[in-house]
Amino acid sequence: MAKEKKLVEQITSMQEDFAQWYTDVVKNAGLIDYTSVKGCMVIKPAGYALWENIQRELDRRFKETGVENVYLPMFIPESLLQKEKDHVEGFAPEVAWVTHGGLQPLQERLCVRPTSETLFCDFYKNEVQSYRDLPKVYNQWCSVVRWEKETRPFLRSREFLWQEGHTAHATAKEAEERTVQMLNVYADFCEEVLAIPVIRGQKTEKEKFAGAESTYTIEALMHDGKALQSGTSHNFGDGFARAFGIQFLDKDNQLKYVHQTSWGLSTRIIGAIIMVHGDDSGLVLPPRIAPTQVMIVPIRQDAPGVLEAAEKLMEAVSEKARVKIDRTDKSPGFKFAEAEIRGIPLRLEIGPKDAEQGKCVLVRRDTREKREVALADAPAEVEKELLRMQEEMFERAKKHRDEHIFDAHNMEELRDIAENHPGFIRGMWCGKTSCEEKIKEELSVTSRCAPFHDQEEISESCVCCGEKAKKLIYWGKAY
Amino acid sequence: MAKEKKLVEQITSMQEDFAQWYTDVVKNAGLIDYTSVKGCMVIKPAGYALWENIQRELDRRFKETGVENVYLPMFIPESLLQKEKDHVEGFAPEVAWVTHGGLQPLQERLCVRPTSETLFCDFYKNEVQSYRDLPKVYNQWCSVVRWEKETRPFLRSREFLWQEGHTAHATAKEAEERTVQMLNVYADFCEEVLAIPVIRGQKTEKEKFAGAESTYTIEALMHDGKALQSGTSHNFGDGFARAFGIQFLDKDNQLKYVHQTSWGLSTRIIGAIIMVHGDDSGLVLPPRIAPTQVMIVPIRQDAPGVLEAAEKLMEAVSEKARVKIDRTDKSPGFKFAEAEIRGIPLRLEIGPKDAEQGKCVLVRRDTREKREVALADAPAEVEKELLRMQEEMFERAKKHRDEHIFDAHNMEELRDIAENHPGFIRGMWCGKTSCEEKIKEELSVTSRCAPFHDQEEISESCVCCGEKAKKLIYWGKAY
Repeated sequence: MAKEKKLVEQITSMQEDFAQWYTDVVKNAGLIDYTSVKGCMVIKPAGYALWENIQRELDRRFKETGVENVYLPMFIPESLLQKEKDHVEGFAPEVAWVTHGGLQPLQERLCVRPTSETLFCDFYKNEVQSYRDLPKVYNQWCSVVRWEKETRPFLRSREFLWQEGHTAHATAKEAEERTVQMLNVYADFCEEVLAIPVIRGQKTEKEKFAGAESTYTIEALMHDGKALQSGTSHNFGDGFARAFGIQFLDKDNQLKYVHQTSWGLSTRIIGAIIMVHGDDSGLVLPPRIAPTQVMIVPIRQDAPGVLEAAEKLMEAVSEKARVKIDRTDKSPGFKFAEAEIRGIPLRLEIGPKDAEQGKCVLVRRDTREKREVALADAPAEVEKELLRMQEEMFERAKKHRDEHIFDAHNMEELRDIAENHPGFIRGMWCGKTSCEEKIKEELSVTSRCAPFHDQEEISESCVCCGEKAKKLIYWGKAY
Repeated sequence: MAKEKKLVEQITSMQEDFAQWYTDVVKNAGLIDYTSVKGCMVIKPAGYALWENIQRELDRRFKETGVENVYLPMFIPESLLQKEKDHVEGFAPEVAWVTHGGLQPLQERLCVRPTSETLFCDFYKNEVQSYRDLPKVYNQWCSVVRWEKETRPFLRSREFLWQEGHTAHATAKEAEERTVQMLNVYADFCEEVLAIPVIRGQKTEKEKFAGAESTYTIEALMHDGKALQSGTSHNFGDGFARAFGIQFLDKDNQLKYVHQTSWGLSTRIIGAIIMVHGDDSGLVLPPRIAPTQVMIVPIRQDAPGVLEAAEKLMEAVSEKARVKIDRTDKSPGFKFAEAEIRGIPLRLEIGPKDAEQGKCVLVRRDTREKREVALADAPAEVEKELLRMQEEMFERAKKHRDEHIFDAHNMEELRDIAENHPGFIRGMWCGKTSCEEKIKEELSVTSRCAPFHDQEEISESCVCCGEKAKKLIYWGKAY
């Protein structure tokens, strides 16, 4: 029993210290390990398998919309990074610089890509000559580097994995449509696959991406009431095209600049999965993304017939789900705790009596609900339960999210909510950056987005300055 | 006609200039583009789709042997790289150094990984405590950087994509078995999927990997008679474990060092596909790896019924193969040339008469063989032809390879073959590095490997010094 206790004791309770709970979960669920390289982590098999599933599912959705994958260099010459003014200002302070190749100093230093707009522009400049070459709808899966001071696994690390899509279009309209389309791909993916409800909206001028005309975002609410920006899609208009000279000869024989977009989603989303669904026993994985969906735990596995029955059960269930058996010599209690920490959606327990009576016990990770199931029915029951669990996890997260959206009509209300009611705060805004800055400075609350849906006028005046409001904003503390 | 001619004219003939032919093919088949970053390339959609297929197939084969994927940082602190003496000597002269993070100089400079043995050792040092933690059979898909002076697309570039597997085992025997097992995974993959016959063998002391006890390799013969090392698998014994202090408590309660292996295959293999199968019209892709296996080209596509028939054909064939239609407004001749340059295995031509008579023309990329096929039979015929083509491409490559293996019994013969008969040279070797060095210096020929199979004594004395020979070596000029 000492061992079982130890596993669970390693996780601080959420109530006690949410940040510590998070760190305990990523470590004890076997998702990551720390390294000798400050701010960089090892993504271990359990973590990487999650990312592989995310990649597979997103990549399929991308390709359905006509995306093609490519790979561009990880290095950007300093002169190239500097071509678009806003962009370089946004990124230069946080890039890593390569100054030596082999034993020689470089003539021009190279930064390790923090994002690849400049490289794609340099590439498109040659690739795009005629309207026939458009659109370009390219994406790459890679790692990027941003020299952050404070780092946390998945949420903010100096190197992280992501995909970055970069497109070029003949018209502004087409670029805008692609920007929205990809945001919706992200949002649908989060809701359908990760069971994470998101707010879709637009970033303010202050919060938009360096060099973008407009930035769209999906914002999710974590269990502690803080927001996590979970994916972004940017419309660059023809700003980059003008800086890089990306022109094409259109059907009307006119030379025109292309219109561009970019959109990215990173391993940060694994942080969202943890903080939306996890509990005090560890990770809880939505069935659709779980690398292992069912863990079979034999009880008294040395007793005659138990392991055989467990293996037969695995074979039958494998038709419907990703299933494994824990055959190790650990105690059942230890195995239960381990499967729980790792967030495996369902557990099937089978002991000597069960095997004899042709049944097993089905346990759900999220609700702990336990019920007996006939072995013959197990595959169908597992399939049904996984579907049900996926739906219920989304509904539960949505309920939690919706219960943590509060309306503020003035600075006093905003302060009260920010201090006492963790969650999203809906508040009207006049459109001035100074109000955003004041709110951020005084309350550590930032504008998350102006929502696409549910734009309504909850009051006439700006929550900060009291002047005439222009739009509804979701505000919040954020990761 | 001008356009068709232009496409083909862009490719220099192999006979005339093989190196230029290669460059023309990679560029005109749309595999890569050059960039502003010297020695780094863009892998374009046609090139990246090849890599995705290689990844999917290899990854599946890895996982069948128990491999789990992980991701480690791209940076290695200088002190970590220096822990294993031979290893740092091998790599330090060709790494890129990061010296600044953001606006600050780093306390310790970091190299961009040229390979990740040192990082995996640092990781395993914490992960492995007991025999229960073994084996670790991890792999990562990533890019690595080596600051080469001369670069060529796919064959030698400053950044390239690869996978690197790193394992830790309780015994020397298990490590040796894993080293051989992974070499065989590579060899089988090359032969079965890429239709590239390979020689499996062991590298000499001089040619082995920096820090390895033994290095195994697969060597393929390119169309110009030069060898290409296509995948390697290393057994480190406990050398790295001792340097890094990776110890575990064994079942017998003794503290022991682990035994390690690593193995890698890179985008270099795309160079092999090009140089083994390509011809003067461009790329020729083995069906199993071709992103598009069949291109349907409608002839007179504006004529009534043609496009409809082509689309119906596509739908039917898509059950059996990866198929596309070229619906662009280019001429049929241009479309043929383009599909040929890109190496698409089969072409289906369908014109107004064909549509009327319920048939189409099937053309094979490698042999140019043309035959009429009833539309109703097309899916089955395509399936059969793809299988046949895959087999015949392997047989043709094997025949070419076997016809270019020559035996040399002394230095004179070796020189004659090296100068006049491009290919592998079989020659006995005494085991002394000085002989290898002499051969390399005088003839630009290196020892490729001591073959695992077909080890026979073709003469008693070393091909170089005439002293007693120890083993048969495959020698050759190499990329």
